[in-house]
Amino acid sequence: MELLRIKTKHLKDVVDLTELVQSVIRKAAMKEGLCSVFVTHTTAAVTTGEIGEGTEQDFLQIVEHMIPRIQFRHAHDPSHAWSHMAASILGPSLTIPVSAGSLVLGTWQSVMLVELDGPRERSVYVSLIAAEPVTQKTGRG
Amino acid sequence: MELLRIKTKHLKDVVDLTELVQSVIRKAAMKEGLCSVFVTHTTAAVTTGEIGEGTEQDFLQIVEHMIPRIQFRHAHDPSHAWSHMAASILGPSLTIPVSAGSLVLGTWQSVMLVELDGPRERSVYVSLIAAEPVTQKTGRG
Amino acid sequence: MELLRIKTKHLKDVVDLTELVQSVIRKAAMKEGLCSVFVTHTTAAVTTGEIGEGTEQDFLQIVEHMIPRIQFRHAHDPSHAWSHMAASILGPSLTIPVSAGSLVLGTWQSVMLVELDGPRERSVYVSLIAAEPVTQKTGRG
Repeated sequence: MELLRIKTKHLKDVVDLTELVQSVIRKAAMKEGLCSVFVTHTTAAVTTGEIGEGTEQDFLQIVEHMIPRIQFRHAHDPSHAWSHMAASILGPSLTIPVSAGSLVLGTWQSVMLVELDGPRERSVYVSLIAAEPVTQKTGRG
Repeated sequence: MELLRIKTKHLKDVVDLTELVQSVIRKAAMKEGLCSVFVTHTTAAVTTGEIGEGTEQDFLQIVEHMIPRIQFRHAHDPSHAWSHMAASILGPSLTIPVSAGSLVLGTWQSVMLVELDGPRERSVYVSLIAAEPVTQKTGRG
Repeated sequence: MELLRIKTKHLKDVVDLTELVQSVIRKAAMKEGLCSVFVTHTTAAVTTGEIGEGTEQDFLQIVEHMIPRIQFRHAHDPSHAWSHMAASILGPSLTIPVSAGSLVLGTWQSVMLVELDGPRERSVYVSLIAAEPVTQKTGRG
């Protein structure tokens, strides 16, 4: 498991993690398996999507429209309640296949850290699990 | 894999699974790896978030606002159609890293079972995968 | 890891992947572990839910209602911007436990490929990770 420390720039932000996650796989020299990306916060999330040409601003605006700002009960810090809801709905975890030492992603598909209460430094954990045991079974199958 | 049987208390409810999932890791004596949490229902979901101080009621109210109650086609049981939609949108699966024998979570981050059609007894499966193979490779790298 | 090539039939569509994913597990002869399902596209997603009796049409209509069609900035192809947003919100990845050689799913729970910009041929990757190492540890615990 490796910890990535990501500095976000805005109150709501999208950061492309693809190259950072790929570098963890390269360092581990893992060829085949699964890569887990997990954000240990309640006001940030991870997903995949196209980045660039305004797509990330569209995404953040859609999330703003989709999740209403109701009268929140949350006593601890009402100003962050919306960010908590958005993070729980988008989710903290992503599991991506690794093949030939690389993340298996589509042409326009990037790993996105979604900042919902920034700017802050965020912790993202990358865990790798090799697939050898199953590969051997497949070979015998 | 271990099965957790969770009794929910309300039509819509949030149950904190963090300690129950942690106890499965302790029992398995797994130090490093991944923990998968999966709910085998179509009207319940799992995610992470802050629990307490009204946050879970805020979350359930936000989901109610976010997902409209349209005229559903679902013939089998129209009254449950909204619950099905909400569960598919929030998702049934979560993958959390494990380090030094503990779930890697943020300070305010709990594992949440989201009940959308309760009260009921729900089945949540916790699966553990050790990371040793990759850890060894990293050591050689 | 195995690649499933899925032909979707409509602009928005839901395809039941359950049997195809189960056949990958059968071929690999894996008994216990985790199955990762990942779609390598930015306008399609995976989740689980009930399929049949109009449920999938309800789901697609709910997603249409939930995610507003705002004035998108996305320059590359504005007509696809909504599909990008919906795919990032629903998410590309799913991790399902495997026990006794079968996916662990609820009675009405199917693995759903959600097409948001079809009809197209979509790539879905199925990766298997055996759980033996942890199972042994549990035995010793």
